[in-house]
Amino acid sequence: MPIYNAPLADMKFILNDVFKAEQFWQSNEKLAHVDAATAEAILEEMAKFAQNVTHPLNRTGDEEGARWENGEVFTPAGFKEAFRQYADGGWIGLGADEEWGGQAMPKMLTVLSDEMLFATNPSFMLYPLLSVGAGMALNSYASQEQKETYLPKIYSGEWSGTMCLTEPHAGTDLGIIKTKAERNEDGTYNITGTKIFITGGDNDLAENIIHLVLAKTPDAPAGSRGISLFIVPKFLLNEDRSLGERNPVGPGSIEHKMGIKASATCVMNSDGAKGYLVGKENEGLAAMFVMMNYERLSMGIQGLGASEFAYQNAAQYATDRLQGRSAAGVQSPNKPADSILVHGDVRRMLLNVRANNEASRAFAVYVGQQLDITKFSTDAEAVKQANNRVALLTPIAKAYLTDTAFQATLDAQMVFGGHGYIREWGMEQCIRDLRIAQIYEGTNGVQSQDLIGRKTIKCGGAFIAEYITEIRDFANDLDTDLNFIKDATLDAATEIEAITQFIIEQAAENVDFPNSAAVDYLHAVGLLSFAYMFAKIAAAAKDKSGDFYQNKIALAQYFVDRILPELDARLAKIKAGSDLIMNFSEITSQTKLNFGVMLKTASIIWLRQFFYRYNKISIKLA
Amino acid sequence: MPIYNAPLADMKFILNDVFKAEQFWQSNEKLAHVDAATAEAILEEMAKFAQNVTHPLNRTGDEEGARWENGEVFTPAGFKEAFRQYADGGWIGLGADEEWGGQAMPKMLTVLSDEMLFATNPSFMLYPLLSVGAGMALNSYASQEQKETYLPKIYSGEWSGTMCLTEPHAGTDLGIIKTKAERNEDGTYNITGTKIFITGGDNDLAENIIHLVLAKTPDAPAGSRGISLFIVPKFLLNEDRSLGERNPVGPGSIEHKMGIKASATCVMNSDGAKGYLVGKENEGLAAMFVMMNYERLSMGIQGLGASEFAYQNAAQYATDRLQGRSAAGVQSPNKPADSILVHGDVRRMLLNVRANNEASRAFAVYVGQQLDITKFSTDAEAVKQANNRVALLTPIAKAYLTDTAFQATLDAQMVFGGHGYIREWGMEQCIRDLRIAQIYEGTNGVQSQDLIGRKTIKCGGAFIAEYITEIRDFANDLDTDLNFIKDATLDAATEIEAITQFIIEQAAENVDFPNSAAVDYLHAVGLLSFAYMFAKIAAAAKDKSGDFYQNKIALAQYFVDRILPELDARLAKIKAGSDLIMNFSEITSQTKLNFGVMLKTASIIWLRQFFYRYNKISIKLA
Repeated sequence: MPIYNAPLADMKFILNDVFKAEQFWQSNEKLAHVDAATAEAILEEMAKFAQNVTHPLNRTGDEEGARWENGEVFTPAGFKEAFRQYADGGWIGLGADEEWGGQAMPKMLTVLSDEMLFATNPSFMLYPLLSVGAGMALNSYASQEQKETYLPKIYSGEWSGTMCLTEPHAGTDLGIIKTKAERNEDGTYNITGTKIFITGGDNDLAENIIHLVLAKTPDAPAGSRGISLFIVPKFLLNEDRSLGERNPVGPGSIEHKMGIKASATCVMNSDGAKGYLVGKENEGLAAMFVMMNYERLSMGIQGLGASEFAYQNAAQYATDRLQGRSAAGVQSPNKPADSILVHGDVRRMLLNVRANNEASRAFAVYVGQQLDITKFSTDAEAVKQANNRVALLTPIAKAYLTDTAFQATLDAQMVFGGHGYIREWGMEQCIRDLRIAQIYEGTNGVQSQDLIGRKTIKCGGAFIAEYITEIRDFANDLDTDLNFIKDATLDAATEIEAITQFIIEQAAENVDFPNSAAVDYLHAVGLLSFAYMFAKIAAAAKDKSGDFYQNKIALAQYFVDRILPELDARLAKIKAGSDLIMNFSEITSQTKLNFGVMLKTASIIWLRQFFYRYNKISIKLA
Repeated sequence: MPIYNAPLADMKFILNDVFKAEQFWQSNEKLAHVDAATAEAILEEMAKFAQNVTHPLNRTGDEEGARWENGEVFTPAGFKEAFRQYADGGWIGLGADEEWGGQAMPKMLTVLSDEMLFATNPSFMLYPLLSVGAGMALNSYASQEQKETYLPKIYSGEWSGTMCLTEPHAGTDLGIIKTKAERNEDGTYNITGTKIFITGGDNDLAENIIHLVLAKTPDAPAGSRGISLFIVPKFLLNEDRSLGERNPVGPGSIEHKMGIKASATCVMNSDGAKGYLVGKENEGLAAMFVMMNYERLSMGIQGLGASEFAYQNAAQYATDRLQGRSAAGVQSPNKPADSILVHGDVRRMLLNVRANNEASRAFAVYVGQQLDITKFSTDAEAVKQANNRVALLTPIAKAYLTDTAFQATLDAQMVFGGHGYIREWGMEQCIRDLRIAQIYEGTNGVQSQDLIGRKTIKCGGAFIAEYITEIRDFANDLDTDLNFIKDATLDAATEIEAITQFIIEQAAENVDFPNSAAVDYLHAVGLLSFAYMFAKIAAAAKDKSGDFYQNKIALAQYFVDRILPELDARLAKIKAGSDLIMNFSEITSQTKLNFGVMLKTASIIWLRQFFYRYNKISIKLA
C-alpha cells in the first residue's frame, strides 16, 4: 500500500545545479569517465530497481522476518532473487575500483542510489552494504593476494561480507573484547569467541560469507591497541579458490528486534575457526574504521531515504484524506470535507519533513564530494582539506541526519492520524526500521563525542574553523535577494565559532564538560550545515523559473523561520555546563516506602472497609 | 527482564509535600473520607498489583497479541485472570460514585494509581479505562434507569464499556459519520454502520460489553449538531437484567498495529443492532466529550507511566553496564571498565527523563486536583475557576505530557545502545506502546488546535490569563534562595502572556494563523507549566534535608538550564507566521524525470558499457 517514486528531479537538481557535478568530474582525470548523462541514467536504473524490486519486498520482509532454523539463517521470500538481480546488475561494486570488478562511480552519485535502496527496503540494503564495507576495509589493508581472492567475489555478490566487532560485554568499548586469535604454525590463526549484533552474519543470499573479525592475540597489548583484524570465511577455500570445508564460525541465534526484521542480526560463535590476518597484528582497529566511516555516512543516507519515503506517503495521504473544513471557509464544496492539506499544522509537518529531506540530500552529496576529493584528487592540499572536512562531517552525517530524519518520520506518521499506527500503511515500519540508524555504527551520542573530542577539541577547533571559512566565503558571495539565508547562515557561523571557542576553553578546565555538551554541539553544527546547504540550494534555484525552483527558495525560508531557531536553545544548553549533571546524586536509587502494614491482596474494597467504613481512623503506617 | 518498582516515595512527596493533599481533602466535606494514610495504602496496594500482576504480562501480551478468531476476540494469556483480580479488588470503580459501587476516591489519587498500571501494562490498562470512561459518560447523561442497569455492572467488571466514534472516513471530523440510528416504535433504535479503532470493541474479559455509539438519526441536522449517543449492548438484557439474545454488533476484524498489541483494536459492525438513546437526540457529542476529556488526561498519564518505566530500566542498565572509562580517570580500577553512568551524556539523557517524570507527575496531580474541585467543591467561584483551568489544561495534559514522554523514552532507549533495539529488554515495546498516546483521543495536533482556538482565542485569552495570575502569585511568594526557578517561571509567564496577545491579534487578521502556530504554542505553555511545577516541587523540598529532597531542587535547576531554553525556539517559530506555510505550492506533486532511453534491465554494467566503454559520448537523454 505505501508508495515510492524515486525523487529523480530533486536528485538531478542537487547534482547538476547545486554541485555542478559534471564540471567537477570532468575536471578530474580519475573521474572523467562520469558525465551528467551517465549519472542520470544510473539513477534512473536504480529508481526502477528500487520501485519494482526492493519496494514490494519491504512490508512482506517485515512481516516474515529473517529466520534462524537448524543453525542457518534464511532471508524472507524474494530477498534471494532480489539480491541476485542486484548483484548481477553490477550494483554492489558501483563505487568500487575497476581492478576488482567495480564500476568506479563517485561517492557523490552512489549516495543517491543508496538513498533509493534505503528508502524502499533498509533491511535488504544492509546485506550489500556490509559487503561493500568489508570490501573497502580489505581494499585498504589486505595483501594483494587477499584482494585478488576476495574482492571480485564480494563485488560480484557471489560472496557477502560482515563486520564482527561487538561482543556481549563490549560495544562502544572495543578495547575489552575477548575473542581470541591463536597463531598456527602455517601463519593462520584459530579464532574463538562470541560476537553479537552481526548484520548478515549468516544468510542464504551468497554462497560464502567473508567475516572480518576483530580479535586479540594472546600477547596483545591491553585495550584498543591490541586488536587485530582477521578474515574468517564461512567456507574455507581450496587452492583453486573453490569452496572447501565449513569453517567453525556460525550463527548461534538471531536477535528479535524493533525493526529491520528482514535483516538477520546474528549472534556469531567462532570455535577455533581458521582466520587470516589482515595487515599487521594489533593494527586491526584502523582497518575496521575504514569500514566504519563508510557505514556511518551510509546511516545518514538511511535516514534520508526513510524520511523521503515518509514524506511521499504522508503528502499523498494528506491530499487524499478529507476531514474538516479550512479555517478560510469551505474549499471543496462538492465533497463532504476538505483535504487535510488545508490545515496549517498538517502543512507544517510536511514542510518539516521536506526541508529535512532536501537539506539532508544536499549534505550527503556534499560529504560524498569531499570523499571523492580525498580519493581522486591529485592536489595534495585539496586532499588534506577534504580529509579534515570528512573527519569533521562524518559524525554529523551519521548522527544529525538520522536524528532529524527520525523526527521527520514521526511528523509524517502523525499526518496519518490513527492510520499511521496501523501496519498496512507502512509508516510505523518506516519508523521502527529507521530507529536503529541512530543507534548502530556508534550511537549518535558516540558520534557527538567523536565530533566534540577528536574532531574539534583535539585539533584546537582547526577543522571547524576551516569549514566556517568555506561557509563564510560562500555566503558572502550570495546576491542580496538571498539576504534571508545569507544573514542566517553567517549568524549561525558566528555563533558556532563562539561556542566552539567556549567549549575548548571549558574542556581545558573541566574534563567532564565535553561529554555533557556533545549532543547539543553536534546538533548546533548540524543546523549550521543545513543553513549552508539551503544557501547553496537557494543560490542554485534563484535564477530559474517555475514552482520547482521557487519552492526550493521557499523551503530555505521555511528552514530559517521554523527550524533554525532551535540553534539558540542548543547553545543555551551547552552554556549551562556540566557541573549539575555530573554532581547529581543517586540517579539510580529508588527510595521505597516501607509500610508497616503489608496487605495480602490488592483490594481497594478491603482497604476502604478497613480504613474508612469501620475504623474511620488514620492508622499510623510505618 | 525489564524491572518496575512503583515510585511510591515520589508519589507520596507530590501528594503530601507539594500539594498537601490531606489538608485539601479534609477541608472538603465530600472528600473528608480520604486521608494521607488511606491514600498511601491504596497506592501501596496498586503498586503490588502493578508489580506482580500486570508487569509480568506486559511482554508476553505484546508477543502474543490480541487475537480475532471466528468473529470473537481473545486477549493474551493471563489477561482474563488479571482483569478479574483487578475488578474483584474494586479498582475499576476507584474514582466512581459510591451509589454505583464506586470508591469515591479523588482524581488526585487515581492519576497515581493509573500511572502504575500504564507503566506496567498499557495494553491491559486500556480495557478498564474504557469501562471507566463509558461509566462517566453514562453517569453524566444517562437516565436513572440506565444508570441503575449499567453502572454497577461496569464498575464491578462484570461488563466492560467502549466508545464507538471513529469511522473509516471520519476521525477528527465526527460531523460526517454515517452510522444510522432508526427509531423503532418502542423507543429503541436500530443502529447500522461500521466503526473502526474501537478499543476493547470485543474481548473475553467481561460477559457483556456496553458500547456507546455515536450515530445519526435520519432527520438529524448535518454536521456535529446532528449526532446522538446510544447504548448498544453486546448482549441484550432480559427484564430481570440477565443476559438475553446476542445483539448484531460485533468485531469484523482487529487491527495490526505498531504497539499496544494486547489491546484489541476492533472494526465494529452494527447491522440493525438495538440501541438505547442516551440523553436527547442530536446531543450526543456533549456526552461523549465527558468521556473524551477523561481519556485525554489519562493519555497524559500513559506518557508519564511509560517514561517512569523507561527511566527505571535505563538507570539500572546504565549502572550495570561497564564500558569505557571516565574522562576524569578510572573510577572502578578492579573492573574492566567503568559504569557508563560516569559519562555526562548518559547522565544528561537520564536527567531528561527524570525531569520529565517529576514535572509530569506533579502536573497530572495538579490537573487532578482541579478536576476534584469541579466535582466536589461547594464554592461556586472556585468551581468556575477550576472548570476554566481544566478546559485550558486538558489538551496540555494530553499532548504535552505524551510528546515529552515519547522523547524521554527515546532517550532512555538510547542509554541501552544496541540492546535498546532488542525486544527482550522491553524498551522498544515501551516506545511502540507509547506512540499511540500522541495519536489517539484526538492527535496532539488536534489538542493544540483545541488549546489555541476554543481555549484561548475564543475567550480572548481569559483562561490563560487566570492561569498566569495563579503562577505569578505562587512564584512571587518563593523565597530568595529559589530565585533560579522563581525568575525562570516569571520570565516564562511574561513570554507566554506576550505570545498569547500576539496570537490573538494575528488570528483576528489571518484565519490560517492559529492552526500553524498551535503545536508550538502548546509546547510553550507546556514549558511554562513544567516551570510552575518545578517551582512547586522546589518550594516543597527546600527546607528538608537529604539527597531525596536536594535532588528535587537540583532537578528543577536542570529543567531551567537544559529544557526551558526550548521556549524561545517555540516562540520564534510562532512569530514566523503562517504565510509561507499556507502559500507553499505543490506539496504533493512529484516532478519526474522522463528519460527518452528506457532500459529494460537495471544493470549498471550494461549502462557503463553503453555510455562509457564503447560510446564514450554523452547521449542526450530526453
